[in-house]
Amino acid sequence: MPVYADPDGGVAIAPAALHAWTAELLGRCGTPVDIAADVAEILMASDRRGIASHGTARLPTYVARVAAGVLDPAARPLLARSRPAIALFDARNGWGHHAGRVAMDWAIETALTQGAATAIVGHSNHYGIAGWYALRAATAGLIGMSFTNASPLVAPTRSRTPLIGTNPIAIAAPAGHWGAFCLDMATSTVPLGRIEVAARRGETLMAGWAIDEEGRPAVTPEAALRGALQPLGGVEATAGYKGYGLGLAVDLLTGVLSGSAFGPTVLGFFSTEGPADLGQAFIVLDPAAIDANGVFSRRLEGYLDQLTEAPVIPDASGRVLVPGEPEVRAEERADVRGIILDRAHAVSLHRLGARFGVAFPVDVPAIG
Amino acid sequence: MPVYADPDGGVAIAPAALHAWTAELLGRCGTPVDIAADVAEILMASDRRGIASHGTARLPTYVARVAAGVLDPAARPLLARSRPAIALFDARNGWGHHAGRVAMDWAIETALTQGAATAIVGHSNHYGIAGWYALRAATAGLIGMSFTNASPLVAPTRSRTPLIGTNPIAIAAPAGHWGAFCLDMATSTVPLGRIEVAARRGETLMAGWAIDEEGRPAVTPEAALRGALQPLGGVEATAGYKGYGLGLAVDLLTGVLSGSAFGPTVLGFFSTEGPADLGQAFIVLDPAAIDANGVFSRRLEGYLDQLTEAPVIPDASGRVLVPGEPEVRAEERADVRGIILDRAHAVSLHRLGARFGVAFPVDVPAIG
Repeated sequence: MPVYADPDGGVAIAPAALHAWTAELLGRCGTPVDIAADVAEILMASDRRGIASHGTARLPTYVARVAAGVLDPAARPLLARSRPAIALFDARNGWGHHAGRVAMDWAIETALTQGAATAIVGHSNHYGIAGWYALRAATAGLIGMSFTNASPLVAPTRSRTPLIGTNPIAIAAPAGHWGAFCLDMATSTVPLGRIEVAARRGETLMAGWAIDEEGRPAVTPEAALRGALQPLGGVEATAGYKGYGLGLAVDLLTGVLSGSAFGPTVLGFFSTEGPADLGQAFIVLDPAAIDANGVFSRRLEGYLDQLTEAPVIPDASGRVLVPGEPEVRAEERADVRGIILDRAHAVSLHRLGARFGVAFPVDVPAIG
Repeated sequence: MPVYADPDGGVAIAPAALHAWTAELLGRCGTPVDIAADVAEILMASDRRGIASHGTARLPTYVARVAAGVLDPAARPLLARSRPAIALFDARNGWGHHAGRVAMDWAIETALTQGAATAIVGHSNHYGIAGWYALRAATAGLIGMSFTNASPLVAPTRSRTPLIGTNPIAIAAPAGHWGAFCLDMATSTVPLGRIEVAARRGETLMAGWAIDEEGRPAVTPEAALRGALQPLGGVEATAGYKGYGLGLAVDLLTGVLSGSAFGPTVLGFFSTEGPADLGQAFIVLDPAAIDANGVFSRRLEGYLDQLTEAPVIPDASGRVLVPGEPEVRAEERADVRGIILDRAHAVSLHRLGARFGVAFPVDVPAIG
């Protein structure tokens, strides 16, 4: 996921304060305390990792969905079917973050005895950043994978219209002094948020990012917003069909396998017409089932050492990075200076707090 | 994988005849009959699917490796460790195709009771096309995934030198009247074979395919062959770090997890200096553990119907494709007209046959 630079004129808030306020707000919307703790933790983790697009900035939309009666804030996931190494959880249209945490914890616990386990979640909602769940397994010493489908924003190779989601893939693993390897990527070239940033900045777009509504390469953000995102790889000649195939594979493991919505049948993210009905998948492998405890992590550490010491290309902006490193740097900054919310984001949370009687804990200039 | 157009002046051979000849040749090199049958089947399947780069064209190199004593043609894989849903197979430096088939069959059989299963293979050799193993699971009504690491040809984002393999990802699933969904893709933008084709044709390269030895975008195939392939996505601004991350994730599941070689420590494909020491991974999920039998396949079928009926972009060369469709079309052609080997390929097999006393079953003009 792209880590965005701190915004100018932003508002700083301590991670713990943002977590506590979010949990309180969710409680006022009818969310039981333990479920609210999961949702708040995962939203705050996204903001702390610098992925502003997937964190508390989404709260106004989530609350609108609860108010419209299309997301049940009190629903608890149900273990619908299981065999020794696989389970299906029915999220029953509750918070995706909570259902995802429960499902990932089942997969972690099961992998510790079976060696590997898969949890599939159906009839779910948005679950935030895919990487959070994969990292939960890595923190337990395991290899974790996490997938979700999403609203159709990406045009398959040759298609003129968006038919599949940006369907992310996350994989994490323990990596010695590197902490964890954590790849967390949309299967489109860029996320919708990057196009919106380009629109605010008046930038033109790079080839391979998006197409316009006629299906031609989109040059302006405005044309892209009326068109569709392109899959990872861009056009057909630069292997965009691989990104399309990966996005489709994620949908197959999540929406299709769980019996939820998939592809063009998923509603738009801002729609309050009906349940999101998303699917998620979690796969966990225990390296200790394959080799002595800790050996895998040390081998991966040494590999990452080699990669990060490689000679670089002439215009490189730094050394080779480990997937997940920019997010860890953002976490370190947030723990020192607080999470920096941009003004529009801070204002929206401030207003939400006022509406539900949960005062936002920091002042927002020109409002608070 | 790219399906190459039939070569001009090629030599046609029936798939069954190529299979039988290959098995016989492998037997003369010291391969037991059942192991030779697996290797021949998988090499022939690659040629039949139009992936000439991964089929019998590799036989001269394989035979050279056996002759040099760095590949043991008679070794049988050993189940080294297992828990109910995961197993490690030690390929003991035998044929990767056979070890892969044995490991995938273990995963299929285990998934039918456990619901999901993972097989890891270490100390292995090249195993041909990743998609063959994934399709074996799909044919059994399951979702199959297959991964392998490979010789370092790809430069991680910002690196000037190749440090990781083209490490493919394959995923296949049953899809009703579509037969199977089968994504089989290298995690580089293009495979090395595509650069070699460009060299033979005197083409210049597209941006995002490769860098030269200074780390700059390679314009000519010759510059690329002295440099490195680029990961899927191309340069950093078009999200090449995602392809790099995926390639690294594959290595983590294969070479690193199995305790085999990984990244820059893997020897070159043509090297006969030592064992290849590759790793492979296979993951299988049983949709019937999640939903009534056949429901998954029908849902996927309907989804693929929708995608392939989508309106197309102005310069599209046809409708939206299902991953794996070009390979199925190549199989259909091969079953009617035979597999078309290019002249150099046919000549190399003819010579190999003469050397081992197994006459190649079709004439090669100007030789046979």
